[in-house]
Amino acid sequence: MREITSNKTRLWLPSIYNSLKKFPERRAGAGYHSESKAKEYKHVCKRACQRAVDQLRAGALAVEAVTAALVELEDSPFTNAGMGSNLNLSGEIECDASIMDGKSLHFGAVGSISGIKNPVLVANCLLTEAQKGKLSAGRIPPCFLVGRGAHDWAISHGIPPCPSEKMATKFSLSAYKRNKRKMEMAEKMDAGQNQEKKRRQSSENENGSGCLDTVGAVVVDSEGNVAAAVSSGGLAMKHPGRVGQAAHYGCGSWAENACNMNSYSAAVSTSGCGEHLIRTMLARECSAAMQSEDAHQALLEAMQNKFISSPFLVSEDRVLGGVIVLRCCRCVEAQPSPNIQGAMVEFLWSHTTESMCVGYMSAQDSKAKTHISRLPPGTVPGKSLAIEGGVCRLTGIVD
Amino acid sequence: MREITSNKTRLWLPSIYNSLKKFPERRAGAGYHSESKAKEYKHVCKRACQRAVDQLRAGALAVEAVTAALVELEDSPFTNAGMGSNLNLSGEIECDASIMDGKSLHFGAVGSISGIKNPVLVANCLLTEAQKGKLSAGRIPPCFLVGRGAHDWAISHGIPPCPSEKMATKFSLSAYKRNKRKMEMAEKMDAGQNQEKKRRQSSENENGSGCLDTVGAVVVDSEGNVAAAVSSGGLAMKHPGRVGQAAHYGCGSWAENACNMNSYSAAVSTSGCGEHLIRTMLARECSAAMQSEDAHQALLEAMQNKFISSPFLVSEDRVLGGVIVLRCCRCVEAQPSPNIQGAMVEFLWSHTTESMCVGYMSAQDSKAKTHISRLPPGTVPGKSLAIEGGVCRLTGIVD
Repeated sequence: MREITSNKTRLWLPSIYNSLKKFPERRAGAGYHSESKAKEYKHVCKRACQRAVDQLRAGALAVEAVTAALVELEDSPFTNAGMGSNLNLSGEIECDASIMDGKSLHFGAVGSISGIKNPVLVANCLLTEAQKGKLSAGRIPPCFLVGRGAHDWAISHGIPPCPSEKMATKFSLSAYKRNKRKMEMAEKMDAGQNQEKKRRQSSENENGSGCLDTVGAVVVDSEGNVAAAVSSGGLAMKHPGRVGQAAHYGCGSWAENACNMNSYSAAVSTSGCGEHLIRTMLARECSAAMQSEDAHQALLEAMQNKFISSPFLVSEDRVLGGVIVLRCCRCVEAQPSPNIQGAMVEFLWSHTTESMCVGYMSAQDSKAKTHISRLPPGTVPGKSLAIEGGVCRLTGIVD
Repeated sequence: MREITSNKTRLWLPSIYNSLKKFPERRAGAGYHSESKAKEYKHVCKRACQRAVDQLRAGALAVEAVTAALVELEDSPFTNAGMGSNLNLSGEIECDASIMDGKSLHFGAVGSISGIKNPVLVANCLLTEAQKGKLSAGRIPPCFLVGRGAHDWAISHGIPPCPSEKMATKFSLSAYKRNKRKMEMAEKMDAGQNQEKKRRQSSENENGSGCLDTVGAVVVDSEGNVAAAVSSGGLAMKHPGRVGQAAHYGCGSWAENACNMNSYSAAVSTSGCGEHLIRTMLARECSAAMQSEDAHQALLEAMQNKFISSPFLVSEDRVLGGVIVLRCCRCVEAQPSPNIQGAMVEFLWSHTTESMCVGYMSAQDSKAKTHISRLPPGTVPGKSLAIEGGVCRLTGIVD
């Protein structure tokens, strides 16, 4: 674990972005291609960090900054979120996104939404609207909308529509054609076998490619509020209407400010195979683990016991996912003088996928740092994990 | 807490059904009407118990029996699930349902599904299909489908469609007209006021009626497996695409067999205001509480601390919900002779709503018992709770 110390300035605000990608060579079979892609991932992570920090500098709260970061990640054609999302079995784009505010503990999510460039804006709008209280005639405002209804709600709340054909990219269209051919071939090959055999065969031949690529972010603001968000086009060739962890409470994003019961504020965003992340409620589990003293050890144990070895996933051969985790506490060591309040912030990431791209930035940094984290050589994706992170003491977080 | 002792027979299988209803007088303002409705609720609960017990007697597992019970509850025009569901803002029926199998820990859910008479059959089919392993080309099968995609998946898996107009009843149509008028009047009255004032006003005038009525069931079978399911038409006048707790993992239903980490098997189904039940993850919280020694005390504390006083719902004036909980353990006291294996089964229910209708039945009972549970006189719905239950020693559960 690297130590990042930055107590010279009044404000150190990590705004951390994660774009988990199973590298394209897994799809296209070319090693060289992946390097150029990695560069793109780093670039978009940097821009997302910048967007969030711009917001924070202008006095925005964590929940606004995390939304700004997600918009940037969604707008990139290189990520599987918003523009350039994976196409489903029918060749359509359907997106999931969610956001959680650690201060109010409100949550907003959209599932299987089409024709909206930035699903995270709809999730954030649902969160904001719910905070205003009941609707006319005492109706409870929704926290989770899906499909056509979600789209129409977004339009009626001022979020502009975007024709689906504009959201597809050359890359997503050619990936769709390739995947479709692959599927047809697999089904042809299995045609003579019975259903049970066919399914087993398929799972042996494949490595679950195309089920990852979600983007997410976690932020702490100058008041010490945390927020988390996540957005995904879902797995390639998914059935229309399939909703993954990105729209699922407790599974895609989680944020809780410190309170009487929790000494630490924690924010988590997850990425990976949606069904694995739903059934293990990984975001909430990692957040709960952050109340232990040693964050690194707690995350390691959570990823091992609540994910890789989870009783909920015993039938899965490989458990694929990744998390970015931010935790924050006010503490004595962080106060250089009694007049300046301070905090200890830890940022950790862990994944069972071959690699994960991470970026982070504080409000006084001139640019973001990015990192491609990889599993140690010789380890097996879905059965082993990588874990890294940094810790910093910061000043300027006020009560 | 009443004690139900039944160790005379080899098989005692509680199959318990819950139809939570805010009584119609809360809508129509007539006390007499509610009594006739209560009778209907009891009848449908009895029939649902019977359906599940028929399945259990024929050797079905818990997950099949719980599905059969839900089908009966959905088919009743008196419940807000399947036939007779609440209409949404556009006058359409959109249903949520989920099921969890404590043995495999698999989960299936549908959200905002139209044109299917029995949403629980789709949820159960998703669960069954996921247990078969990966799809062609290594694709992960979905556990959660919504909207049009969920409907089409259901049809392609042999579940018959049902025209939406056949699912509406005289009662649901007249309730829709009444609610629409009420909404228009409320909006007219508030027209001159600003948005903030309008919202506060509304929440003072209303008691959140129309947000309840979900049906659910929990079952333990002769092998000691538990299962839980839930189904709902959602709150009246909800926005199209709104998904409530009934489709949400950890929120609507939860079931976990005993294992190395858990001494007790537990199954939970929740009912009430979907947004409150989602944000508190009430089903999973109650299930986790069941690992304490005193189930009654643990459920009381969970309902008080994790629901009514939940930090996630501090901004809510009333927190409306109910749960049915089944827990089961193999224990020494339950064994009348060393050759016959036995178990202690506890069935509990609790609610913060004015009333909740509960039914239960074992495989050797000739008919189900039903009960309308009410809050103690003088207590406030959404701020107080009722809790009751029974415990029984049973034989015949085999390893």
